[in-house]
Amino acid sequence: MNTWGERFKVSIFGESHGKAIGAVLDGVPSGTELDEEYIKMRMDRRRPGKNLMSTTRVEGDRVKIVSGFVNGKTTGTPMCGIIENRDMRSKDYQGELMRPGHADYTAYVKYGESRDFRGGGHFSGRITAPLVFAGAVAEQVLKKYSVTIGTHIYRVGDVYDTPFDSVSTDINALNDLEKMDFPVICAEAGEKMREEIDRSRLSADSVGGILECAICGMPAGVGSPFFGSVESRLSSMMFSIPAVKGIEFGRGFGFAGMYGSEANDEFYIENGQVKTRTNNNAGINGGITNGMPIIFRIAVKPTASIGQTQNSIDIERMENTEIKIHGRHDPCIVHRAASVVSAAAAITVLDMILGEA
Amino acid sequence: MNTWGERFKVSIFGESHGKAIGAVLDGVPSGTELDEEYIKMRMDRRRPGKNLMSTTRVEGDRVKIVSGFVNGKTTGTPMCGIIENRDMRSKDYQGELMRPGHADYTAYVKYGESRDFRGGGHFSGRITAPLVFAGAVAEQVLKKYSVTIGTHIYRVGDVYDTPFDSVSTDINALNDLEKMDFPVICAEAGEKMREEIDRSRLSADSVGGILECAICGMPAGVGSPFFGSVESRLSSMMFSIPAVKGIEFGRGFGFAGMYGSEANDEFYIENGQVKTRTNNNAGINGGITNGMPIIFRIAVKPTASIGQTQNSIDIERMENTEIKIHGRHDPCIVHRAASVVSAAAAITVLDMILGEA
Amino acid sequence: MNTWGERFKVSIFGESHGKAIGAVLDGVPSGTELDEEYIKMRMDRRRPGKNLMSTTRVEGDRVKIVSGFVNGKTTGTPMCGIIENRDMRSKDYQGELMRPGHADYTAYVKYGESRDFRGGGHFSGRITAPLVFAGAVAEQVLKKYSVTIGTHIYRVGDVYDTPFDSVSTDINALNDLEKMDFPVICAEAGEKMREEIDRSRLSADSVGGILECAICGMPAGVGSPFFGSVESRLSSMMFSIPAVKGIEFGRGFGFAGMYGSEANDEFYIENGQVKTRTNNNAGINGGITNGMPIIFRIAVKPTASIGQTQNSIDIERMENTEIKIHGRHDPCIVHRAASVVSAAAAITVLDMILGEA
Amino acid sequence: MNTWGERFKVSIFGESHGKAIGAVLDGVPSGTELDEEYIKMRMDRRRPGKNLMSTTRVEGDRVKIVSGFVNGKTTGTPMCGIIENRDMRSKDYQGELMRPGHADYTAYVKYGESRDFRGGGHFSGRITAPLVFAGAVAEQVLKKYSVTIGTHIYRVGDVYDTPFDSVSTDINALNDLEKMDFPVICAEAGEKMREEIDRSRLSADSVGGILECAICGMPAGVGSPFFGSVESRLSSMMFSIPAVKGIEFGRGFGFAGMYGSEANDEFYIENGQVKTRTNNNAGINGGITNGMPIIFRIAVKPTASIGQTQNSIDIERMENTEIKIHGRHDPCIVHRAASVVSAAAAITVLDMILGEA
Repeated sequence: MNTWGERFKVSIFGESHGKAIGAVLDGVPSGTELDEEYIKMRMDRRRPGKNLMSTTRVEGDRVKIVSGFVNGKTTGTPMCGIIENRDMRSKDYQGELMRPGHADYTAYVKYGESRDFRGGGHFSGRITAPLVFAGAVAEQVLKKYSVTIGTHIYRVGDVYDTPFDSVSTDINALNDLEKMDFPVICAEAGEKMREEIDRSRLSADSVGGILECAICGMPAGVGSPFFGSVESRLSSMMFSIPAVKGIEFGRGFGFAGMYGSEANDEFYIENGQVKTRTNNNAGINGGITNGMPIIFRIAVKPTASIGQTQNSIDIERMENTEIKIHGRHDPCIVHRAASVVSAAAAITVLDMILGEA
Repeated sequence: MNTWGERFKVSIFGESHGKAIGAVLDGVPSGTELDEEYIKMRMDRRRPGKNLMSTTRVEGDRVKIVSGFVNGKTTGTPMCGIIENRDMRSKDYQGELMRPGHADYTAYVKYGESRDFRGGGHFSGRITAPLVFAGAVAEQVLKKYSVTIGTHIYRVGDVYDTPFDSVSTDINALNDLEKMDFPVICAEAGEKMREEIDRSRLSADSVGGILECAICGMPAGVGSPFFGSVESRLSSMMFSIPAVKGIEFGRGFGFAGMYGSEANDEFYIENGQVKTRTNNNAGINGGITNGMPIIFRIAVKPTASIGQTQNSIDIERMENTEIKIHGRHDPCIVHRAASVVSAAAAITVLDMILGEA
Repeated sequence: MNTWGERFKVSIFGESHGKAIGAVLDGVPSGTELDEEYIKMRMDRRRPGKNLMSTTRVEGDRVKIVSGFVNGKTTGTPMCGIIENRDMRSKDYQGELMRPGHADYTAYVKYGESRDFRGGGHFSGRITAPLVFAGAVAEQVLKKYSVTIGTHIYRVGDVYDTPFDSVSTDINALNDLEKMDFPVICAEAGEKMREEIDRSRLSADSVGGILECAICGMPAGVGSPFFGSVESRLSSMMFSIPAVKGIEFGRGFGFAGMYGSEANDEFYIENGQVKTRTNNNAGINGGITNGMPIIFRIAVKPTASIGQTQNSIDIERMENTEIKIHGRHDPCIVHRAASVVSAAAAITVLDMILGEA
Repeated sequence: MNTWGERFKVSIFGESHGKAIGAVLDGVPSGTELDEEYIKMRMDRRRPGKNLMSTTRVEGDRVKIVSGFVNGKTTGTPMCGIIENRDMRSKDYQGELMRPGHADYTAYVKYGESRDFRGGGHFSGRITAPLVFAGAVAEQVLKKYSVTIGTHIYRVGDVYDTPFDSVSTDINALNDLEKMDFPVICAEAGEKMREEIDRSRLSADSVGGILECAICGMPAGVGSPFFGSVESRLSSMMFSIPAVKGIEFGRGFGFAGMYGSEANDEFYIENGQVKTRTNNNAGINGGITNGMPIIFRIAVKPTASIGQTQNSIDIERMENTEIKIHGRHDPCIVHRAASVVSAAAAITVLDMILGEA
């Protein structure tokens, strides 16, 4: 299950403290020009260690593409991108203590004593770096389909950003968001969010949030009824991102309090184009795109690693104990997850678009 | 994309007004005793036409199992279940008018003029009947794994039911819910929900809601990190159900306002068993079950078919027009969707459990 | 594993003596006109009971298409075709005696006592009827790609037919073969083969043979290196046909006695088209079509059911015993398998062509 | 299509003259001890440059395992093995000249001008090195299932080795074969084969052959009817190996001249075990193993690269021309392919065995 996709396949591998992590991408159309500087820029954006809001671990995160790429163009055969691991302090980790909110215990049950527990092993958020690499490739392929993707922090703690305009989403604003380390639409809300995160950091705690992602320019007719619905494909990818615990499309859970007469998006024709006046359904009817923006929200739980002492268990001695997690941690991963969500969205829609070709 | 699953594969087919609908199930362990009466009971529960809260269309929905099943036991080879269509009033449907909130337009773009638009064709909620059949088989296989699944209506309009107790979910209560046509934990809340639905019916409108599903008895260690996470698998299946627009696991979107110190579920050992004191993460860490109940919520949008006149378009003449939908419709599908959600959950966890074997 | 294909997916189900057998086809392009008479003609050709060379069981083999097909055209959603079983004499079969050459023992090991052993159950050659249905649909879709497929009996016993001309294969001759019940290029060879089969019948024995299939009109560039090679795809499908035990492409096993200077097919350009002077590689280089005819041979073992007494075992008593198979049997299935091989080839190349689109 | 397998998944990547080649293995059971020296030995065996019968290119072929492997044991998460490319003389290759028998032309059609043509790119036989790595891992996992695999050169030119005894295959002899650089059962036949190869080398030509592989110790009941047959799975993998053009199981094409009474393998019970007296069906009935050895033969065409001048085309100028291939080439790849066939067999049966668990 380390591979996702039908036409644009992404296989990921690696552990937080192993020799290297990476991804193999299959199905990249041959002859696609790839800007390695763009990939580097995307990797840097996800990369921690840039400020107090993120772990101070310095990850080089330089992707070395070892196959499928010659003279700045893809060859059409599998691309393998490798990221070497550095700056690892494995001694910070004790395998027998199960960190609450982490996959320590479930990894122990599934993989047994031979699992790599150092730094969370294969379960580490670090393994989202290969996803960002895959997304950076997908984004460049998507350019020729005029698809634009952007993600902003919709909520941290009790602070809310301005939501996207679901009917006339601003493409330029999306592109701007993708350049920000802390992507928000309303600068003031962003400032308050940072304060909220800083408060968590000072109390050795962490905080969760909600991300909102918009995919604009999708052609109508992409997706399938039932198992291949746009919602099924996007959600299966989004829940691959560690810490994601919810997803809603368009009005999502808000539909519960709506009437059909409000919820239905009425169609109209303007300049020969079919549009909807509202976009409560997030550009998706019956699992298939209708050409309006796809907008969804992602719930991100607070970082599991916190500095406070917690109750837990020693799995080897099978006894209750306390645990205090040392090492470097993010008081909030919502802003870093934004770049992963955009990458994951790019991977998903590229796979679906190539499937329609 | 009409097939879902790795080990327990479900393929569905059929259109609302075609000759028959059905499903092929592959991977059912041989020698499993199946009670056809149980299957009939599950089909009846989803079936409409029983009261004013549902469409008055009478669907026989008798499943004829034509393969893979001999003398009350499965043979281990593919099981095909067929449900004949009856009581179809195809003249109620006009293909050129795009019903808001439905897949008419997206089906037109994807499949063109040859699509079967009668009654929504392959996009009809009727195609969930084969899913319920598949689920009824899965539920019976799951018995030997001691897995229990139950779904209740958590919300309709502004009326809320009592939520599940996520730590000590009552298995008997789950089984009781699965026998109810209108499954709620609090009878009084159920009464108010019915009133809300009746109000919608009288105003030729419809109403949405939220379902809450609990899966108890899952062994720890099921699932995979990343693409094969329990959340990825369940969500990809749940979004296959028409009208589903959101899913959240455990605290879901509520995590946004929580601190890590609150969100983390602390482990403890009791009688040699590993448990968590809270269950905010819905029994899933790093995509893998930890043995606690899996609890998730599903947002269901209001039925798209309403009796009011709506603005829309004529896709053949490419002009704006009005549409008034005749035919028989549900003022609310949330309660009927409950049986589909339970079935879909059974299909998913069976596939995952067989994958671990 | 009852589903094959990436873009044109075929799922088969059914047992020889169950209620019905059939196939679900997913990925049929919408709006494809299908001639049901053509399907009937293809089914009739595979059907036994027409002469002494085949079993006298009369199979109606009428396919009822219950979904995905309206007004003579495909809708683009899954097509389910169902064939009811009739004329079954289940009492001819004893489950505890393992017939040599059949799957009785392996089915017993894999599926246990609940397997359906009547008539070979799901392992019966009868389950190739749904494949022929799927092939008859694929053939009609392939028409717009100008692909022509034909299969002849290359060998029965020691009698050989004239092989295909691999460089300039005659399309009309291929079409003619597909109309013959006993498809051969040289009528005289055909006559001798029939005599050979008749001799086997009279001695209560059976005889094997070799089929040769040609696929003409394939565009260049279809297929993939390694796992998705044309040879991999075709062979995985061909070995799904019961009794097939070998496949070779082009010179196949003959390559062992050749030098590279003989084996290499030299390219040349004629009228702006790239061709090869010889076609030893069967139109495939590096797993990908080069535009020349794809020609392969299929080894078919003698029918396992013979009238002679054989040594075998009683699996319930776990003791050695003798077995004499009653019921109706084919002294040779090679000619009937020809229509299955053509169908299987059509399924495979359609899936590959749709994958390139 | 760079990924193969259901439970033990192998993804390969790389080009002959790129930075690196490799494979990602998913589904390796956690806690499996892997001997890296064994992997090195297997890689060395496939490696060319050891004598005059192979190309003199020196490939280091040292596999660096960067993930999924800690302290000599697998962790259960994806294993990525990377092999750096060295000693590349890319200037030997001209992209516009289509080498007969190679994938140059088909790669040009499929991937266009951006393909990597240096040294055959992704189509190079060098990409079988990652397969051998995957096989070396699979072989070590298979040890606990007591499965033994061996391959010998059955034929080169007109020289034949002694075939395997299909009923009582000698396990020790299989193990011995796997240690030989030129694996034959009869040393004298091997000497004559070497002479044949040497003759080809001196005349700047190449020669083909046949490999015979035996898989012993397979439990009965592995595989599936139809699409998941043992023959389907093995053949789809074997035809992934460049230069393979045919496969036959057991008597294979020889069945054409046999009667059913000869071809059927009669069952008998000995010491409570079910066996067959002959093994014409290669241990497979109805696509499922019966516990007898699986024996199959593989046709390998002569190396496409030969030193003689050949007619061909210049694809850029679209004109007929001559080509003389420089660089280093194998006069025969049959003996080197033996290690690839054993590796490919190990990958396939491990995937099937894990699928039954």
